[in-house]
Formats: sequence, structure tokens, C-alpha cells
Amino acid sequence: MSRPSLDFWFEFASTYSYVAAMRAGDAAARAGVQLRWRPFLLGPIFKAQGWDSSPFNLYPVKGRYMWRDIERLCAELNAPFRIPDPFPQNGLNAARAALAAIEQGFGEDFVKAVYLAEFGEGRQISDAAVIGEIITRLGHDAESVLERAQSDEIKARLRSNTEEGQARGLFGAPSFVTEDGELFWGNDRLDQALAWTQRRQEPQVRP
Amino acid sequence: MSRPSLDFWFEFASTYSYVAAMRAGDAAARAGVQLRWRPFLLGPIFKAQGWDSSPFNLYPVKGRYMWRDIERLCAELNAPFRIPDPFPQNGLNAARAALAAIEQGFGEDFVKAVYLAEFGEGRQISDAAVIGEIITRLGHDAESVLERAQSDEIKARLRSNTEEGQARGLFGAPSFVTEDGELFWGNDRLDQALAWTQRRQEPQVRP
Repeated sequence: MSRPSLDFWFEFASTYSYVAAMRAGDAAARAGVQLRWRPFLLGPIFKAQGWDSSPFNLYPVKGRYMWRDIERLCAELNAPFRIPDPFPQNGLNAARAALAAIEQGFGEDFVKAVYLAEFGEGRQISDAAVIGEIITRLGHDAESVLERAQSDEIKARLRSNTEEGQARGLFGAPSFVTEDGELFWGNDRLDQALAWTQRRQEPQVRP
Repeated sequence: MSRPSLDFWFEFASTYSYVAAMRAGDAAARAGVQLRWRPFLLGPIFKAQGWDSSPFNLYPVKGRYMWRDIERLCAELNAPFRIPDPFPQNGLNAARAALAAIEQGFGEDFVKAVYLAEFGEGRQISDAAVIGEIITRLGHDAESVLERAQSDEIKARLRSNTEEGQARGLFGAPSFVTEDGELFWGNDRLDQALAWTQRRQEPQVRP
């Protein structure tokens, strides 16, 4: 019997996506759930709500809280943290490269390395050189992966990912969507989304 | 040695405050933490951010998700749930009455009963008769508690609670504030806030 799967929707500019990405793979493995890594862009979705930046910039009181909250969560996870400058970073190139890395089988490692560069080291993830360095460090050919990332096919895939996310009701990141279409928003919902996915395998106790 | 305390800030209109209120007392007791029940009003705080209603009404995509999320959380807690009409309810009278109930020693029971009337039974908590019924059911004198709730002293206390909340950086409800000023926002943060409060008692392992 194949493992049930859970879609993990993330955006590279998103702070809580960083925290989720650092732990989602291990948590899913422990739960016997296959995690599908789904990069998408929040920009178009925020625009549809009338926001031209991160809500954490638009609402400074909430933003101040978020930085402290992330700092605490990272301390619990033993994950490094610093505030990116600028925030939010432009995650377009990283998201395209993630799609190329996923199809070449090193998606999770790539995604975590990009988040660590961004939120752990303060690197500029909009910079193709930074992304190339990460690919090389992971033992892959930076030039060919970056070329693939800029192909029409990958560009279209990221657009259609984002459209699919919007159609599934996504309004923030990270989000988790189960095979039966349940949406769970936020790093805080990872465990609940995994539990929901596991219960899918046992229809008699399905909520 | 006195138990460490944690301030639980709640607003009667708030859906996630309902969920938190149903479990916060028991969770705090298990953790050996004294919970201080702090009613306040989100209206003035939302106005300062430019919102004239609940953000769940202003951002319908987020609102739709919230109702589903609350439904799932209530199912896990075995708490009843229905969407109040109208939403948000005006919680002013209930918040004043809560301050009176707290000073008379039946705060937690009162708060939970109001939330159950609102989110479990679809009652109008802006209605003094509904609040009076709850007070009576809890074995107290509705007339005198309601009179106390409308006193200048209680009205001023609710205003100063709200101002204190704003000064402490509150921007939503529920929120938890520790003795050393750490702010935790959301029902999801109850356990973390309790753990933080417990660690306060053991300075050597304080994060």
C-alpha cells in the first residue's frame, strides 16, 4: 500500500515557511507520510487581497511580534536566525530553481539550504550566484540546474502552482493540503495535517 | 513559593479566544501556573490598524479558512460550534460583566458559559438578558452583578485593560503575556506560554 501524501506549500520569502521547512521532512517521515514539496509565490495572492508587501511590514505591531516569535521557534529547533535585509526577499528565482531541484531529486536539501542562506546567514536569495553556490555545494551542476530553472516549462509550472494554490484557498504560507482537499495554514498546523493524512488510511476513524 | 502567573487576554467576539478559554484553565492547572483572566476589547486595537471589522470579514478567503479551522479544533476538543450571527458579536457588555464576575470569584465559569452561549448555542451575547441568564444559572445574583458591570469603576477598568493590552503589544486575541513581558499570540501558543512561565521558576534553564 502506498504511503498517503501531503502537499507542503511554501514561499521562500516566508518566515514561518522557513521554520516549517526545517522540520517538515523529518516529521512526515516519522508519520509515514510522503511530503510533496510545492513552491509557490505569495505575491499574486497578497495582491488579490490588496497587499503590496508582506502583511508583517504593512502591520508593524504584528511584524514586531512575528520576529520575536520566529526567534523563539528557531531557538527551540536549534535553527539559526537573523532578519533578512531587505524583507521580504524576492523568492522568484529560488522558487524556479526549487522546481528544477525537485525534478532532479534533491528538492528538500535545496529548499532547506536556501532557507538557511536567507534566514540563517542573511544572504540575498534573489541573487543567482547565491543559488548557484548552493546547488554546487549540494553536489549538482549549478549551470545546468539554473538553466533549467529559467526554462519556459519551469516558469509555467511555477505560475500554475501558484494558480493551483490560489484555487485551493491558500492565502498564506506555509500551508498544507491533504489528498482530500483539507487546508491547514501555518507551521503550527503541520502535526494536525500529518495526523489528518494518517487517518485517511483508516476510514473507520476518519473525522 | 507562590505559583508563577500568566495573563490570558481574551475578547468575547474572538473565535480562537473561545477555543483557548475552553482549555486554558485546565492546562494552566496541570502546569502549576496561575491564570489571570484578562478581558479586553479588540475594536480599538483593530481601529488603530485601520480595520473597522474582524479581519476574517475583511479578508473572506482567510475567514472561510478560519471557520473550517475552528470547526476542526472544536471537534478535537469536543466543544460545540456554530457560526454566530452576526459575526463578530458585540462583546462589550459581556466583557464588563466578566470583570464583575472575576472580582466575585466566578470568572472562569462565567467566561466559558458566555463563549458556549455564543459559539455553541448561537445566542446574542450583546443582550443583557442572555448575560443575566448565565449569571443566574451559575448561582449568582444577576441583577447585582449586571449593575456592578455597568458601574463607572468597571467601565474604567475595561478601558484601562484595553489600553494596557495595547501597550503590551497585543494586536489580536487570544494572547498570553508572561510575568517577564513575553507575548504569545493565539490559541496555538498556550502550551508554549505555559512552558515559558514554568521555566521562569528555574532561572538556570531559562531560554
